[in-house]
Amino acid sequence: MKKKIAFRSTCPISTMLDITGDKWSLLIVRDLAFKGKNTYGDFLKAGEGIATNVLADKLTQLEIGGIVTKERHPQSKAKVLYRLTKKGIDLIPALVEIILWSEKYHHVHEQAVSFAWQVRRDKIGMTKMLMDGAKKIEL
Amino acid sequence: MKKKIAFRSTCPISTMLDITGDKWSLLIVRDLAFKGKNTYGDFLKAGEGIATNVLADKLTQLEIGGIVTKERHPQSKAKVLYRLTKKGIDLIPALVEIILWSEKYHHVHEQAVSFAWQVRRDKIGMTKMLMDGAKKIEL
Repeated sequence: MKKKIAFRSTCPISTMLDITGDKWSLLIVRDLAFKGKNTYGDFLKAGEGIATNVLADKLTQLEIGGIVTKERHPQSKAKVLYRLTKKGIDLIPALVEIILWSEKYHHVHEQAVSFAWQVRRDKIGMTKMLMDGAKKIEL
Repeated sequence: MKKKIAFRSTCPISTMLDITGDKWSLLIVRDLAFKGKNTYGDFLKAGEGIATNVLADKLTQLEIGGIVTKERHPQSKAKVLYRLTKKGIDLIPALVEIILWSEKYHHVHEQAVSFAWQVRRDKIGMTKMLMDGAKKIEL
C-alpha cells in the first residue's frame, strides 16, 4: 500500500514543507527541471553529494507527494526514468523566487540567475521549453 | 565566535536550503512575516507543534543565516524579541509562490491563499504593510 504524507496543519507553507522540507528534495526537482537529469545515477552525481540512502528516501517521498513519477527507461531495463509531474513542474515559480533571493544575498552561479529572470518574465513559455527538454542550465 | 553556514555548492537553490532547508524554519519566517508573532513562546504555540530544542536550533540557524535578529523585549527582560531582517522579508515572494502551489494541489486555509494573491499582485505595497505590522492573517 502506498504511504501517505502526514500533514501537520492546513497551512499552505507547512503543507509544502511536509513534502519537500529538507535539504535535498528541491535539488532533485532542480535536476529534473533544469538540468536534464532523470535517473538515480544522475541525481547521485549532483555536486552537493547526496548519500544513496537519502536519495532513495527523498525519491520515495517525492513520488508519494505526487511530484515525480517513475517510468521504464527506454535504453536500459536496469534503470528507472524519473519525471516531474504537472504538480512538480508547478514548483518552478517557487524555485525561481528562491534563486532570485539567493542571488541578492549570496555568491551564486550567475547563469542560473539570468535564467531565473527569464523564467520570471515569461513563466509559461519558459516552463514549456524546460519541459520539452530544450534547455539545460548549470544551476 | 558566531558560526557560519557551510554551503554545499554555489547553486542558488542549494544555498537557500543550506539555511532554511527543513520542516520548521520557513514556519518561523511565516509567523514573523504574516502572524505578528515575535517571541520564543509565540513560535512554540504555532499549530504544527515544534519542540523546544528544535525551535532553539532553528532560531540560531536563522540568525546565523542573517534572516532574523534578536532585540530586547520592551515589556519584559525575560523575553527576547525576534524580527525579520531585510533578507528575511525578501523571502516573502518565495513564500507566496509556495502558498499558491499548495492551494492548487492541497486542501489549505483559504484566507492565506487570497492574501497570497494580493501579495503577488502588489508585492512592494503588501510587503511594506506586512512589515509595518498592519496586517495579520491566519496562515
